[in-house]
Amino acid sequence: MQQKLEEALSKIAMAPISVIAAGRTDTRVHASLQVVHFETGVDRDAIAWVRGGNQYLPDDVSIRWAVPVDDQFHARFAATSRRYVYLLASQPHRPGLNRGLVGWTHWPLEMSRIEAALPALWGKHDFTSFRASECQAKSPLKTIYSATVTPRGNVLRLDFHADAFLHHMIRNIVGALVYIGNARQPSDWLKTLIAQKDRTLAAPTFSPDGLYLAGIEYDRRFALPEAFVDPCL
Amino acid sequence: MQQKLEEALSKIAMAPISVIAAGRTDTRVHASLQVVHFETGVDRDAIAWVRGGNQYLPDDVSIRWAVPVDDQFHARFAATSRRYVYLLASQPHRPGLNRGLVGWTHWPLEMSRIEAALPALWGKHDFTSFRASECQAKSPLKTIYSATVTPRGNVLRLDFHADAFLHHMIRNIVGALVYIGNARQPSDWLKTLIAQKDRTLAAPTFSPDGLYLAGIEYDRRFALPEAFVDPCL
Repeated sequence: MQQKLEEALSKIAMAPISVIAAGRTDTRVHASLQVVHFETGVDRDAIAWVRGGNQYLPDDVSIRWAVPVDDQFHARFAATSRRYVYLLASQPHRPGLNRGLVGWTHWPLEMSRIEAALPALWGKHDFTSFRASECQAKSPLKTIYSATVTPRGNVLRLDFHADAFLHHMIRNIVGALVYIGNARQPSDWLKTLIAQKDRTLAAPTFSPDGLYLAGIEYDRRFALPEAFVDPCL
Repeated sequence: MQQKLEEALSKIAMAPISVIAAGRTDTRVHASLQVVHFETGVDRDAIAWVRGGNQYLPDDVSIRWAVPVDDQFHARFAATSRRYVYLLASQPHRPGLNRGLVGWTHWPLEMSRIEAALPALWGKHDFTSFRASECQAKSPLKTIYSATVTPRGNVLRLDFHADAFLHHMIRNIVGALVYIGNARQPSDWLKTLIAQKDRTLAAPTFSPDGLYLAGIEYDRRFALPEAFVDPCL
């Protein structure tokens, strides 16, 4: 995706353009919002980057807006928080219409058990138990501002807001929440896992299909037009 | 899709099976719910039709349930009402994440204008102005029980409930609503068009991408487990 975007923007600029993105998304993970920045000596109206870029991009990605920023801006390092949404379907049959757009378990889940578990995530913790071995982050300490669950039809909508996330952190947390929701583990299991700081004791990494990068916040002075796009219609 | 379903069910039955569906869906039109019936001399548990069928079906369709019905049931002729949802995106850039799942116009739309127009559809009317020339229905008279619009993020969610619909009827109505929402036509234009009974005076047929067959109702005595599935997550 990054390469396709760089190719499209390079055509508009008629010069090579490299972009830096706010967050990475693994294969099959979606983004309802992603922020990238790039440097260019070429002067174009914002609308030219948007309309021209969209003309050259494949149909599964769309540029929503473009604004000029100063040298202090950095899509990744200037981000003050990220928000991910996970859509979790719990039903006996596999998703048809929403294939690839929701994570799916055939286990019945009790939302109240997941709701009771989530507050254990809030605040600053060492999230080693939910960290992929490939994770490049300097520290396993992250601060979760909120983690909530709400029902959307047959789907549970999990919403995670944090300063930053470790590699696979949400998919690993969702894996544990599925065990909790199905009563294979108690609601305080997240708390136990955080304290244990051991990835091998937690649940398997859950499917990428239901995961959406949905929000990135920056200092207000950059005046970006959007900080969050809900992946739910 | 019908053929794929018949092939899958025939494998479970180990005998040829033909299905009859409640409603047709044009190419690129979706169904969050569809009801089909079939006759078979083979005795299988409901769960065998569901699980077995899903194993043989492509991943963009999924059997949700199966129940035995008596000879009085007919998926198409016994249906007492149908419900379609149309998801209409109004934004300058084309949809990326939701490509193919929403109809899109780059015209700005005022929801209040569409809201004011919809009551003209309610009740029994001759919908010739919204009928495709290929339409096979015996009569252009249909009864709309409700037609509503609600906002979902950048998308307008249109919800149509009627005894039955003519071919392309909703896509043709949505085409007119886009003109009304963009103030190219007044809010009472639907009323005018219905009275004119002339397809050529109305707006072009709108995109199939945002249209979902979402509900089919039958007499309660058939005790079907679901009458509506919201296509919105």
